[in-house]
Amino acid sequence: MTNETARRIVVLAGGVGGSKFAVGLRTLLARSEPMAAVTVIANTGDDLWLTGIRLQPDVDSLLYALAGVNDAERGWGRSGESERVSTELRAWNAGWPWFTLGDLDLGTHLARTGWLREGVGAVEIVRRLSARWPLGVEILPMTEAEVDTIVTVRDGDGKRTMHFQEWWTLHRARLEPIRFANPGIEMALPAPGVTEAIARADVVLVAPSNPVVSVGPILSVPGIRDALRDTGAPIVGISPIIGGAVVRGMADVCLAAVGAECSAAGVAAVYGARSAGGILDAWLVAEEDSATLPSIRALGIAARVAPLWMHDTDSSAQLAADALALATDVSGL
Amino acid sequence: MTNETARRIVVLAGGVGGSKFAVGLRTLLARSEPMAAVTVIANTGDDLWLTGIRLQPDVDSLLYALAGVNDAERGWGRSGESERVSTELRAWNAGWPWFTLGDLDLGTHLARTGWLREGVGAVEIVRRLSARWPLGVEILPMTEAEVDTIVTVRDGDGKRTMHFQEWWTLHRARLEPIRFANPGIEMALPAPGVTEAIARADVVLVAPSNPVVSVGPILSVPGIRDALRDTGAPIVGISPIIGGAVVRGMADVCLAAVGAECSAAGVAAVYGARSAGGILDAWLVAEEDSATLPSIRALGIAARVAPLWMHDTDSSAQLAADALALATDVSGL
Repeated sequence: MTNETARRIVVLAGGVGGSKFAVGLRTLLARSEPMAAVTVIANTGDDLWLTGIRLQPDVDSLLYALAGVNDAERGWGRSGESERVSTELRAWNAGWPWFTLGDLDLGTHLARTGWLREGVGAVEIVRRLSARWPLGVEILPMTEAEVDTIVTVRDGDGKRTMHFQEWWTLHRARLEPIRFANPGIEMALPAPGVTEAIARADVVLVAPSNPVVSVGPILSVPGIRDALRDTGAPIVGISPIIGGAVVRGMADVCLAAVGAECSAAGVAAVYGARSAGGILDAWLVAEEDSATLPSIRALGIAARVAPLWMHDTDSSAQLAADALALATDVSGL
Repeated sequence: MTNETARRIVVLAGGVGGSKFAVGLRTLLARSEPMAAVTVIANTGDDLWLTGIRLQPDVDSLLYALAGVNDAERGWGRSGESERVSTELRAWNAGWPWFTLGDLDLGTHLARTGWLREGVGAVEIVRRLSARWPLGVEILPMTEAEVDTIVTVRDGDGKRTMHFQEWWTLHRARLEPIRFANPGIEMALPAPGVTEAIARADVVLVAPSNPVVSVGPILSVPGIRDALRDTGAPIVGISPIIGGAVVRGMADVCLAAVGAECSAAGVAAVYGARSAGGILDAWLVAEEDSATLPSIRALGIAARVAPLWMHDTDSSAQLAADALALATDVSGL
């Protein structure tokens, strides 16, 4: 493939599943299509202010994984991490004692916060962070606005709200969620470059991320759904549900909160067929879920089975290859 | 001495000299006058925002020294310190690469910043920080307002301004200062408790701190000079100049910038006699500077020689005893 025809691939992604998939995609392309350009549009719904500093967990997960400095065993954060500062914060009774804040990770947050306070935008900040290592992938935050996810949970006869991270990390998603919201998102703009990347993409992939709290916020930024509906590129998603169960994280309770079934077909229905006002042209499901193919196709979404487990970089790369092959096939339809 | 007559001692102090003196004073009082109450009014002119977080170096120096967790050898910061985060910040090209930011110290700054962002005032923040250890001394910031010291230096034929910490730490005070200013200080209020502490004090001591950039900002907060003029307590200062030279820090260039002589008498003249609109009743000078006694007395300030070197806690305690004895003597005049 020549430079002129180098493909532009856009990925919508959350943190952990998105990172594994992005690393697999990069590995695949390095072998087969080195001129291809990948833009990952990252969820920023789980961003937070903590002790006066700004954290952007999904962006950082992507950054660390693509840089190869992530803690693969733990599944998040930096490898070789320590908690000298965090231990002090606990001694001061400051911040969230249940929220792990590594020292190396904190360096990223402080750099980000300092730049934010200088008036630097979120895209430029991610660009600066990305410049430290040869990532081979462009990371774009979905928006430069602050649209932290707020969860409303049932509390006895009433309800109460909390930051997504409190619900997810402190309560391990055990409090029954009624609603997820991103206050202010209706006024937010897509980050500079986001809709442009979607418009000129040759392929758009939806990573196997949480459809409600990872990909959901991306789709809620005004303008992004429209860009997806209008792009000439095929849009292929990968199911985050395998064998009717969540791979990791707590997508099941999130799906229940939005009235969706925790199945490959249930998530496909949340996204919807592009032909019916949704965003998907095609959906890749696990071999274990082949029984769901008819109901997905009934939605107007092309569907195919493939091995979805991302055990290592090779299996992630193979998954990316299967997703790109499905994109090519639906383009030809 | 009974509880009823327990003395209230107020100390005006900068960071390093102030800390050694405060530790000495506490040690002395623990032996001789355990019911005495000490309030240290700390300079906040060298406070700064760095990568989005708030540092309050003089308060922290006092805190760490009184808690016994300071790095006595280095003269500032925490003992057993590391720089995991700071190393990351350098890798990100964020913040000030020349400014040492220890991990343990950073815990304090993050706790402070988080509380500030929650709307907690500076006095309450220092109270929370002080509650971690039995300090035996109350630390009060001079003001809750941000009045960071700005230095104007000569630059070729022109001049330029910078934050005090840039001048002090990066340039080691080698750029010739023309002026020190604390923008906004004319509108600042003394922190709650400051003028009250001075008003009801039995003794006020001015620690051997930099008269221009440590004690100077304290005296520039509107209301503090008036409180010092009005208090019934004797006010005794300790010269930060020994043998005509600065003990540490760079008080000499600071004094030159305000047109003062770098001598025990020169600093006394900067403070001035209370009887002549200044703040001092008495001034303790080093034995090496006994020749300056007549010119200090000519200002209307009682003066006496004493050993001023604070080599260890015992010598600091002895210095505190000498200052208190001088206070008692001038009270009896």
